[in-house]
Amino acid sequence: MAQKKLAIIAAKGTLDGAYPPFILASTAVALDYEVQVFFTFYGLQLLRRELDLKVTPLGNPAMPMPMKMDKWFPTMLTALPGMEGMMTTMMQKKIAEKGVASVQELRDICQEGGVRLIACQMTVDLFDMNPDEFIEGIDYAGAADFFAFAGESDICLYM
Amino acid sequence: MAQKKLAIIAAKGTLDGAYPPFILASTAVALDYEVQVFFTFYGLQLLRRELDLKVTPLGNPAMPMPMKMDKWFPTMLTALPGMEGMMTTMMQKKIAEKGVASVQELRDICQEGGVRLIACQMTVDLFDMNPDEFIEGIDYAGAADFFAFAGESDICLYM
Amino acid sequence: MAQKKLAIIAAKGTLDGAYPPFILASTAVALDYEVQVFFTFYGLQLLRRELDLKVTPLGNPAMPMPMKMDKWFPTMLTALPGMEGMMTTMMQKKIAEKGVASVQELRDICQEGGVRLIACQMTVDLFDMNPDEFIEGIDYAGAADFFAFAGESDICLYM
Repeated sequence: MAQKKLAIIAAKGTLDGAYPPFILASTAVALDYEVQVFFTFYGLQLLRRELDLKVTPLGNPAMPMPMKMDKWFPTMLTALPGMEGMMTTMMQKKIAEKGVASVQELRDICQEGGVRLIACQMTVDLFDMNPDEFIEGIDYAGAADFFAFAGESDICLYM
Repeated sequence: MAQKKLAIIAAKGTLDGAYPPFILASTAVALDYEVQVFFTFYGLQLLRRELDLKVTPLGNPAMPMPMKMDKWFPTMLTALPGMEGMMTTMMQKKIAEKGVASVQELRDICQEGGVRLIACQMTVDLFDMNPDEFIEGIDYAGAADFFAFAGESDICLYM
Repeated sequence: MAQKKLAIIAAKGTLDGAYPPFILASTAVALDYEVQVFFTFYGLQLLRRELDLKVTPLGNPAMPMPMKMDKWFPTMLTALPGMEGMMTTMMQKKIAEKGVASVQELRDICQEGGVRLIACQMTVDLFDMNPDEFIEGIDYAGAADFFAFAGESDICLYM
């Protein structure tokens, strides 16, 4: 049987947006899939050497508030200075407590497992991003290049 | 001809995020697809017995404002306490007026049609969610388990 | 070899949400794919004759701030009246400077290349949208109709 292929387009650059692509990519590798992830738009943030990912309750009324704070936190307060940092710290702590790997660890697992990580060249140019700030071992390519793999994939996800 | 398969990963927990997976799943079932939906991260909210889904205009400048209010609602006002509840009520009313099924009804149609609803075990653990709060007839599994179906699917969507 | 097929469900109506479907669709057409894009929910905004797409930093802490402003812009300020317009203008300027095509241009390229653009009839009805406000040459259909193409596609993305 031919090796299965998973193609992912990762377009979000938040802490909660970082988990899905790296969890699915590392899971697929463990299941012997060939995996390629194409990082575009805000997703490029996930390739930085120094990750500074945040999570925000703004615009996401579905976010479960830790410590049952939701009764005391009307939407307006979520726009207060400091809330973003507080929610990010809380989520990171919860993740650590539960023994879930950090984004950095999951990214390492992906690279060690042979997942091909691709930075969207157009986005790098558009936002004047500095490739020196990205991790090593990644490729730079355009969408057309990614289609060669995606068009043959068994699963192709945009997230 | 083999039965077609639709695999969905539902990661959002808002009122407007709830419709796409349930509409597509119920449509696919009506077209005789085999369908599985994997609820992860905020998507777990969609499996609660008592749905308390909200919609927010925060962070979504594309939301059409009912009653042409957009001229009078600068972005800042969308952060006012009460706006979220008001927008949610307005959207629910609009949906009811137009004869569109509620999320609860669409979810029932999915279950009656044989859609397999799967709660992501890792998310349940991470957020200390209580399975008693979820509807009956759902399965609990991990991403690896879901790949067995997704890898054989004709359409696999992350939403 | 049979012609490859790309099916896209476009559900976002923001400026940054407009690029992915039109870039991928136009790229795929250039690679000789048959392409259909189904515009639903907020995505319908992308079919308007007069595009009025905005980008907001609200709820997206991953947005790169132009001119290294991020140190001086705490989250709360992003809710100030005028910020949305300012960020939108900045992003449009950056896109123009870099020679990236506008959304309107990319949409034209898609139509000239034979991409089938489909407006979700249910959304049009739900939000009382006026088809006169949409561009010409598009089709109106439901999700069931779209499945006929998506179920045979090589890549199917929800974005």
